[in-house]
Amino acid sequence: MKNILPLLFILLVFGGSCAFASSMEIHDDPIAAMLLAVIAILVVAKLFGEISVRCGLPSVLGELIGGILLGNLVLLNPGLGFFEPLRMTPIQGYWPIAVDSFARLGVIILLFEVGLESTVKGMMKVGASSFIVAVLGVIAPFILGFGASWFFIKNIPIELARIVPAGFSLFYVHLFVGSVLCATSVGITARVFKDLGKLQMKEAQIILGAAVIDDVLGLIVLAVVSGIVTSAESGQPVAFGSVFRPIVMSILFLVGTLIAGVFFVPRIMKQLARLRTSGVAMVSSLVFAFVLAYLANLAGLAPIVGAFAAGLLLEEVHFRGFQGEVQIKQLIRPVSTLMVPIFFVFMGIQVRLESFANPSIIGLAAGLTVAAILGKQICGLGILEKHLDRLTIGVGMIPRGEVGLIFASIGRNFRVIDDAAFSAIVIMVIVTTLITPPLLSLTLQRKRKKTSLNEPGIE
Amino acid sequence: MKNILPLLFILLVFGGSCAFASSMEIHDDPIAAMLLAVIAILVVAKLFGEISVRCGLPSVLGELIGGILLGNLVLLNPGLGFFEPLRMTPIQGYWPIAVDSFARLGVIILLFEVGLESTVKGMMKVGASSFIVAVLGVIAPFILGFGASWFFIKNIPIELARIVPAGFSLFYVHLFVGSVLCATSVGITARVFKDLGKLQMKEAQIILGAAVIDDVLGLIVLAVVSGIVTSAESGQPVAFGSVFRPIVMSILFLVGTLIAGVFFVPRIMKQLARLRTSGVAMVSSLVFAFVLAYLANLAGLAPIVGAFAAGLLLEEVHFRGFQGEVQIKQLIRPVSTLMVPIFFVFMGIQVRLESFANPSIIGLAAGLTVAAILGKQICGLGILEKHLDRLTIGVGMIPRGEVGLIFASIGRNFRVIDDAAFSAIVIMVIVTTLITPPLLSLTLQRKRKKTSLNEPGIE
Repeated sequence: MKNILPLLFILLVFGGSCAFASSMEIHDDPIAAMLLAVIAILVVAKLFGEISVRCGLPSVLGELIGGILLGNLVLLNPGLGFFEPLRMTPIQGYWPIAVDSFARLGVIILLFEVGLESTVKGMMKVGASSFIVAVLGVIAPFILGFGASWFFIKNIPIELARIVPAGFSLFYVHLFVGSVLCATSVGITARVFKDLGKLQMKEAQIILGAAVIDDVLGLIVLAVVSGIVTSAESGQPVAFGSVFRPIVMSILFLVGTLIAGVFFVPRIMKQLARLRTSGVAMVSSLVFAFVLAYLANLAGLAPIVGAFAAGLLLEEVHFRGFQGEVQIKQLIRPVSTLMVPIFFVFMGIQVRLESFANPSIIGLAAGLTVAAILGKQICGLGILEKHLDRLTIGVGMIPRGEVGLIFASIGRNFRVIDDAAFSAIVIMVIVTTLITPPLLSLTLQRKRKKTSLNEPGIE
Repeated sequence: MKNILPLLFILLVFGGSCAFASSMEIHDDPIAAMLLAVIAILVVAKLFGEISVRCGLPSVLGELIGGILLGNLVLLNPGLGFFEPLRMTPIQGYWPIAVDSFARLGVIILLFEVGLESTVKGMMKVGASSFIVAVLGVIAPFILGFGASWFFIKNIPIELARIVPAGFSLFYVHLFVGSVLCATSVGITARVFKDLGKLQMKEAQIILGAAVIDDVLGLIVLAVVSGIVTSAESGQPVAFGSVFRPIVMSILFLVGTLIAGVFFVPRIMKQLARLRTSGVAMVSSLVFAFVLAYLANLAGLAPIVGAFAAGLLLEEVHFRGFQGEVQIKQLIRPVSTLMVPIFFVFMGIQVRLESFANPSIIGLAAGLTVAAILGKQICGLGILEKHLDRLTIGVGMIPRGEVGLIFASIGRNFRVIDDAAFSAIVIMVIVTTLITPPLLSLTLQRKRKKTSLNEPGIE
């Protein structure tokens, strides 16, 4: 009972925000509207994030679902259509641009944090199994996702015009949908292993290693697909160069920044450590992430590639004599706690529930979900060691979360992913995240039974 | 020598940012431009903030000067005019709106922090002297500022059209310029007292108390002036209501939120303390500040009034059983370290150095500076206690900083303050901040000499 009180309170605030939102038509002050949007998004993020955490799920799931509710309030009452400007492409007007820019900085900070969690050495160490698991876990879902997109979108002739913007062949749509299925969001798997005290299991180690390699491979797939779409956009035929140039650029960028970084970053940090202004460590590491994001953009890659590289570098360098490596993550955390949920609520807001009035879109969502689940089961085949549970590894790789959504939002900016396809992708992300914890608990119990039969003395 | 190395490094980064900025014309990607602007602003803020701190001055001064340099690079080379869109009113385009929204949230967070530093009890306790000092310190600079504006703007007939937008009589311009001179930015004075180990001096206590009351009175003056300008804008004659309604609204809003807050906030915080999602304390206190800022806006007041009230409330409540009161400030600090300097650099960018090619604008700046200094000397007359140094109190009240700038930027949004007047105001803020530390050291030395003559045994 007592646990429900804070939720009730936030629901009240949430209701209040919505009521304000509905009365917003009388306001044309952009600052008031911006404040209102930020308040509603943050309240929804923390309310639904909290519900999610209490159900043993990651808060990102609650943020997405909260966003979906917030964006689709308009279905209840046209007066609640405050967030409609956030669902247009391109985003226009003062407060929608403000929210969009917060969300974009949020993603950059998120990938910076993901990079901080990974190290080049760590990637090397997990060995051949992780690498093979990762490569299979990128190729198989890509092919299945391409197939699902081809099958479902092909069979919806009426929807063609909506899903394919002028100038794009359906081929590019399938490419983007396929690439969305590549990246594993291993956070939830790590959480389940941790909760069960199984993080040191060999299977857990392989999954965590594969997920990091997955991130890099996924970013390269994104670079290739974006390169192909960009060259198609400018009317050029898809040439050998447009496929391999992004691969070479991505690898050159990552390797180049890592080498330059390992050499320069410790020197720079040593100098910065002498500054006395407050927050220098936090602001300079954020600036570093923004600079690499900007350079990645100059190199024709997505800004998130640069942010990820910045995270890898700062982790490698360990900030010796300046701030402990753990502290850099801690310094960034308040800013990321504020900015990152804005991105996920924003993604939820862009889901149009009315899309699902068309059964074909439900088919697409179901097809993508099946492709996402089956695709990662092939990973299990890549394990070299015997006595490891292939099913546990396959199930552990199922969740698509942050990175898949980021890819989808980039596809949306390219206008390759439309409202309906975007909505189907978000549903796929939600379902794969929802089913993983119970499935993983089941496979781990099954494995424990097998193990206890073989080695009855060891629990 | 070693101290100069980090500055040299940041200068290099700064030069790099500017070089990037100059090449920005080839980019039309709004995200790249936003990243570049944020990078340049943050680097300049920390570089010049650091130089300022090393000179024993507050970092806000460096942020302003850095912003002035960044905004006026275009005078060196038209190719360096990257920041021109930030100097237009209204702000238009993706990245200028993004930066503007960061700056606006920055001000709200700043006033929230100022509110956190103050308590209602504290204001009561400092007593009659602080109150009289504060009231005199608002009235005298207002009258002198009005006079300086009247004298200098009246004598620049050519500039009339620029300083007065259509539909405004010069009277409203003088009103706004006068109100900019009201608020004391006592941070630098507190710093000097602290550095000299004199924070417990009676004079220091009176100044600090008066500064808090100043903030409240200044916000009321702003509300009144804004109300008059708004009613003038809508073509109505300045009525009794447009003067007294904002006073009543401000007092009602502050008293109302404080009473409601003292009752509700502890209950709400007790509930929030039960939530498990990360960063709930920080995000919910920020949301609280945003909600009161929004409500203030609904009540026809500036959003900063609400943010200030939110700070007062959360300080009063002490977050018992949730987070210590010190920790709320600490939780907010990373976000404010990132956002607040964006506001001050942005203010600096909007200063047009070419305005000063006209000697009349230099006259206006000089007149405002003299009015700001002399106006606060009258404060000393309000001291009831004997044996206190009136000059020390007058000098301690000189700095106009954050709050004056915020008022000026609000005037700019009302289009009552134009480029030239804004530039003159920023120069006044810089000069008053620069002269206070040396002057205050002098008056304190003079006082110590007098004291040591009277009581030779006590140092």
